[in-house]
Amino acid sequence: MTGSTGPATLGVGMVGYSFMGAVHSQAWRTAGRFFDLPMTPSMVALCGRDGAAVAAAAERMGWAGSETSWKRLLTRDDVDLVDVCTPGDTHAEIAIAALEAGKHVLCEKPLANSVAEALDMVRAAETARARGVRSMVAFNYRRIPAVALARTLVAKGRIGTVRHVRAQYLQDWVVDPEFPLVWRLQKDKAGSGALGDIGAHVIDLAQHVTGSSITSVTGTTETFVTERPLVAEGPTSGLRAGAAGGRGQVTVDDAALFLTRFDSGALGCFEATRFATGRKNTIRLEVNGSEGSIVFDFEAMNELQFYDGTEDPETAGFRRVLVTEPGHPYVGAWWPPGHGLGYEHTFTHEVVDLVTAIGRGEDPAPSFADGLQVQQVLAAVERSAADGTWQDVPTSSRSAR
Amino acid sequence: MTGSTGPATLGVGMVGYSFMGAVHSQAWRTAGRFFDLPMTPSMVALCGRDGAAVAAAAERMGWAGSETSWKRLLTRDDVDLVDVCTPGDTHAEIAIAALEAGKHVLCEKPLANSVAEALDMVRAAETARARGVRSMVAFNYRRIPAVALARTLVAKGRIGTVRHVRAQYLQDWVVDPEFPLVWRLQKDKAGSGALGDIGAHVIDLAQHVTGSSITSVTGTTETFVTERPLVAEGPTSGLRAGAAGGRGQVTVDDAALFLTRFDSGALGCFEATRFATGRKNTIRLEVNGSEGSIVFDFEAMNELQFYDGTEDPETAGFRRVLVTEPGHPYVGAWWPPGHGLGYEHTFTHEVVDLVTAIGRGEDPAPSFADGLQVQQVLAAVERSAADGTWQDVPTSSRSAR
Amino acid sequence: MTGSTGPATLGVGMVGYSFMGAVHSQAWRTAGRFFDLPMTPSMVALCGRDGAAVAAAAERMGWAGSETSWKRLLTRDDVDLVDVCTPGDTHAEIAIAALEAGKHVLCEKPLANSVAEALDMVRAAETARARGVRSMVAFNYRRIPAVALARTLVAKGRIGTVRHVRAQYLQDWVVDPEFPLVWRLQKDKAGSGALGDIGAHVIDLAQHVTGSSITSVTGTTETFVTERPLVAEGPTSGLRAGAAGGRGQVTVDDAALFLTRFDSGALGCFEATRFATGRKNTIRLEVNGSEGSIVFDFEAMNELQFYDGTEDPETAGFRRVLVTEPGHPYVGAWWPPGHGLGYEHTFTHEVVDLVTAIGRGEDPAPSFADGLQVQQVLAAVERSAADGTWQDVPTSSRSAR
Amino acid sequence: MTGSTGPATLGVGMVGYSFMGAVHSQAWRTAGRFFDLPMTPSMVALCGRDGAAVAAAAERMGWAGSETSWKRLLTRDDVDLVDVCTPGDTHAEIAIAALEAGKHVLCEKPLANSVAEALDMVRAAETARARGVRSMVAFNYRRIPAVALARTLVAKGRIGTVRHVRAQYLQDWVVDPEFPLVWRLQKDKAGSGALGDIGAHVIDLAQHVTGSSITSVTGTTETFVTERPLVAEGPTSGLRAGAAGGRGQVTVDDAALFLTRFDSGALGCFEATRFATGRKNTIRLEVNGSEGSIVFDFEAMNELQFYDGTEDPETAGFRRVLVTEPGHPYVGAWWPPGHGLGYEHTFTHEVVDLVTAIGRGEDPAPSFADGLQVQQVLAAVERSAADGTWQDVPTSSRSAR
Repeated sequence: MTGSTGPATLGVGMVGYSFMGAVHSQAWRTAGRFFDLPMTPSMVALCGRDGAAVAAAAERMGWAGSETSWKRLLTRDDVDLVDVCTPGDTHAEIAIAALEAGKHVLCEKPLANSVAEALDMVRAAETARARGVRSMVAFNYRRIPAVALARTLVAKGRIGTVRHVRAQYLQDWVVDPEFPLVWRLQKDKAGSGALGDIGAHVIDLAQHVTGSSITSVTGTTETFVTERPLVAEGPTSGLRAGAAGGRGQVTVDDAALFLTRFDSGALGCFEATRFATGRKNTIRLEVNGSEGSIVFDFEAMNELQFYDGTEDPETAGFRRVLVTEPGHPYVGAWWPPGHGLGYEHTFTHEVVDLVTAIGRGEDPAPSFADGLQVQQVLAAVERSAADGTWQDVPTSSRSAR
Repeated sequence: MTGSTGPATLGVGMVGYSFMGAVHSQAWRTAGRFFDLPMTPSMVALCGRDGAAVAAAAERMGWAGSETSWKRLLTRDDVDLVDVCTPGDTHAEIAIAALEAGKHVLCEKPLANSVAEALDMVRAAETARARGVRSMVAFNYRRIPAVALARTLVAKGRIGTVRHVRAQYLQDWVVDPEFPLVWRLQKDKAGSGALGDIGAHVIDLAQHVTGSSITSVTGTTETFVTERPLVAEGPTSGLRAGAAGGRGQVTVDDAALFLTRFDSGALGCFEATRFATGRKNTIRLEVNGSEGSIVFDFEAMNELQFYDGTEDPETAGFRRVLVTEPGHPYVGAWWPPGHGLGYEHTFTHEVVDLVTAIGRGEDPAPSFADGLQVQQVLAAVERSAADGTWQDVPTSSRSAR
Repeated sequence: MTGSTGPATLGVGMVGYSFMGAVHSQAWRTAGRFFDLPMTPSMVALCGRDGAAVAAAAERMGWAGSETSWKRLLTRDDVDLVDVCTPGDTHAEIAIAALEAGKHVLCEKPLANSVAEALDMVRAAETARARGVRSMVAFNYRRIPAVALARTLVAKGRIGTVRHVRAQYLQDWVVDPEFPLVWRLQKDKAGSGALGDIGAHVIDLAQHVTGSSITSVTGTTETFVTERPLVAEGPTSGLRAGAAGGRGQVTVDDAALFLTRFDSGALGCFEATRFATGRKNTIRLEVNGSEGSIVFDFEAMNELQFYDGTEDPETAGFRRVLVTEPGHPYVGAWWPPGHGLGYEHTFTHEVVDLVTAIGRGEDPAPSFADGLQVQQVLAAVERSAADGTWQDVPTSSRSAR
Repeated sequence: MTGSTGPATLGVGMVGYSFMGAVHSQAWRTAGRFFDLPMTPSMVALCGRDGAAVAAAAERMGWAGSETSWKRLLTRDDVDLVDVCTPGDTHAEIAIAALEAGKHVLCEKPLANSVAEALDMVRAAETARARGVRSMVAFNYRRIPAVALARTLVAKGRIGTVRHVRAQYLQDWVVDPEFPLVWRLQKDKAGSGALGDIGAHVIDLAQHVTGSSITSVTGTTETFVTERPLVAEGPTSGLRAGAAGGRGQVTVDDAALFLTRFDSGALGCFEATRFATGRKNTIRLEVNGSEGSIVFDFEAMNELQFYDGTEDPETAGFRRVLVTEPGHPYVGAWWPPGHGLGYEHTFTHEVVDLVTAIGRGEDPAPSFADGLQVQQVLAAVERSAADGTWQDVPTSSRSAR
């Protein structure tokens, strides 16, 4: 961190430049244009293994330079923060090294591919924190204005005591049995399938919006298509054209379903699948409380449905709140009412919250501990899927929400 | 009307037994089963020209007997009320004769095929009224609980001063140029096309819900398909299988669009068409006021959308009110919340309101005068379509709303 | 059964005249008016314990007479069929006696309050069947045209191999802790709570639409409000005004959640609750297959959403099919396209299917065996809720679907 | 234009930095990050009258420098294109001067405040065009992927012959009579009110999607609130806090309604209003053709509804197409299916199309002539509103669509 007059600069280095890298880049480029940040992000270097490719990507995405070794990236003085956008199998190593090098870390979700790794990361984060080094796990969907509003309404008591949480994350991109065996379908790289990739999001959303934690789960997972065509691809470069020939084993789940209990006494019903034909990126969260309900659907991401159970029955009903008013979370920085935001804005808001916390010397949320807790829920689902019983989520890991 | 102890009987005779006859029959059979009526409807006789057909229909539809002459029907002492379900070209003759015979009259809409006929009917109704004989025109959509609620909310001032009325009645049953030349496409029988058949409904709905009257209009009409295959059919029997061969001229409009001004200062935008491919029986009404808005869509007939502009912007939004609560209009007689009604219930409610008014010695609404006023709006649209200018709707005909 | 020329008469006696009795009566009155039935239902007698009340109800609902003892009802020669609309604790006794007396039986769901009772009923049904006596359990929601269409599309292979079933039945009528302890909240009368009352419906719907059977379940139940005000009420008369004073224990579940496996390999996720604030009678079923998906929502009961995964991605999307075309199941008997049906029509269709099967000498569906199988799913959920493990549903009970 | 190896640079200067300036800046910053452009936009200078304010805005919005005189901006050699984001009263002067100075011009809509000005601009554009200087009017909503898809489907004949166009642009930001007299409510600055500001958008959308032109109109306008509080504000700076005291006359329309005829024979029904309480930025377009229909609603901007009238009625229905597939217009450059775009992307796409055309030496669309034609429709509506008759739109101005 430099600093003199004006906001200090926050030098950012990013590892990985596939899908997540592209959207994080847009966020880093954009955050300071619309929000007043206490520090000015500077896009110092993009890191990837293929030198020519990463240099081209860096130029296109607006990074001042590039690196082919994340270890070298960590040695640069002009890098204050490392943004980890690689597949889950490398999160722990990179993030821990970055924290030890005194770099703030933004790490994509799920935090790690195992609870053990996540625990190591939390310990590293706590050690670093004592030195003023911050860390955050990237649950971007929290930053949708409608989701932030949902959390506010629940926290204000507008829906009373939460009774039911109903959460679904539905996709269909692997329904075709000829869709190839990309890294997200390999356990060694991705940790798990739908469960960790998208189930993690709705676990975080549900806990974030309700302000309560999952204490136990029972669930099941399924792999509908167990063999798929092999492809040549690198770990951070997404799907390459041209199959490698032959078939390989799908080693992750295609779908995960689980019931939960929350520490608030609420019941939860979760579903994450890549086999919901016609559902492209459907994220739904319904929360029913003793006084009202809220419903969010990512396909209508600029809306929140809210039912106020205290209203006169004559006119009570689910309100479709367009979350585009200046007073709504994050919205004031953008456009007039009714002019909606898109997917990428969730990342811009993430950067805003992160930089704001760093600039203020506060801990950003969600912390690595929060990421670990989600990981422990995922692990509990996997244990339950294996033995068919309810599994507790370790209490110690749950942060005050 | 007979009478001794218990509710008096109201003997009903119905003329016509096609689509409207079937649904009116269901209403007459059902009203007293769910609602407390001051008189008990007795389905005395069904009238049609084909003796065998009408006798069979009478048995199926639950009428005690049948007649082949409506004039004979009027001479029967056990008939207290005549329900006119024939095409528009016979409304005036039958309804006036019935009123003169001392029979209450329920007449399908549009009231008549011309303003002149409608004026005669209003005069007959007023004369009869002096003798305690009642008359009503059958704008059934008023009786949808959600529409009745909409009127109540507007009347209570919940949306403030009305600024905009946006009304559409969209169908698509004649899009195919090979659809035959049924009576509804012939001016001498039907009076007009989409304008009178379905436009009349939304004119009535808009005026009913807002409690204000259309004062002037400008509009246009169009016949997209001008020739169609001939069919053999009788006036009350709907479409017969088997074409008659040859083609005939379509003499009514396929679509009518018109802008209006209301006596309240509001602006209106109306559209009635049989050429909205994919829209089967779409009736939409949106009313924007200074304090709020209401939206009705017949495809979701058990719902009303309501926007309360006085709410905190944080949670303001169009509420989807399920109009299925016991306190909602008509609903208490039916099922628990969330168990919706269908199309036919609008006619049952119509019968309930009519019989209740007759039993109480009150005038049912909408009156023949209301039907005339709608006719005058239709006539103004036709004049405007002919000469391209704004046309006033005669003031004298507008009832206090 | 009498008979000479014309369709034979089918004398019907009904036990119970609360909510279910009212809607069944409407169905018996209406079915023959719109559908061609092989026998003509005659509403012979309504049965209830309070003589004056049942006589008044009989008159209002259109029954020729009344009885105060169901045993006496069974002795009447003019009763060919007994319609059991009482709470679940009396189903077995009445239905078995009726079958033994040679009466066809229509029995409300859930078939019984326990598997043991249901087994007895199935045995009685099978014995009676040998003598040409028919029986059916009343899962009315199968008869929604959109649901029937969904089953047809799945059966035709339009969505391919079923992967996911997502079913919810959400209500909110007991959210208020001061809502009284009505019979539906008492285990001895109702058997179970949300699970049997509404969960049974979505279990049947899911199996019916997919044509496959649930083989195992894991689930949980919860009673959020454990004590409620006592009320004076009879078993068949619904909620009486005026509380009895004091409080009693709620002995049934308020909510039940369960995951399932189907014999087709599909995964299921079910939720039944009376604590979903704002959800009045929300029934949702989504089925994802390898080639497409279907979605039904009772709040839009005249629609089916259908996604055809074989379409060009340029225009692929969930189609909102208005299930109001003449070719759609049941619809041809009713109104033109776009004129929707309501809740009560499901019962009318039920009567149509039942009378048609009886008239043809065929077994109506769903059979008592189907009702038993649903009961066994319910029992498996209860066992799972008690011990936290997956529970198998006995295979023997599953009919060919 | 400079140039050597690699894409040439396109130096951009922008005039105005209020709402439109902010969103145009985001577009200029972003276009080249996601799309392959034949030239690289360089954000050279932002121009405004208040030197300190414009310098601060330039820095925030990513412009290399600033200018306080647009005339000086036009003299800069490093400016190849001028982006005109000022109120409509200055469009003609700035755009014509820019074209004469050899700068390409992107001009916000409506093109001008009068037909006369627009005609001058078209002439200037045509003269400049001969010298390779390009011009475009900024109808951004054309660039919504769903709208572009709609146009494609209509052009392919997927909905057959267009019969009906139904277009609404509804807002509510001036419903409160105490909302101040900002420049958009003053005829001398804004030209007209809802008509030109938002009506222009739906006129363009309707003509663009259908590929046909409006030939005549009849309409009406209304100003519901005729006096409002005065405010101190500059022409490009939006609403300033603090009223100036006193009230002034609203000199523009609050709402405009008009019916149209298209050269294709279709009928149109248009509504633009700022008094639709609860409607924030609702843009709806429904087009009914002989073979199908399309519906767009900006509140669900990532969707297009499409009805294919040639489908089997069993499963025909409006499809909700998520316009987020890689093959959909513009979408391939962004995120995976189901991850939607927002309002600002329409401007990014606009820049992409403009730069692409310039780079290829082609004319971008919509041209100034297209902008003039929309202006002539607006003028025809105003004439019609004044005298109550149908008004022709001059044929000469209509481009081949």
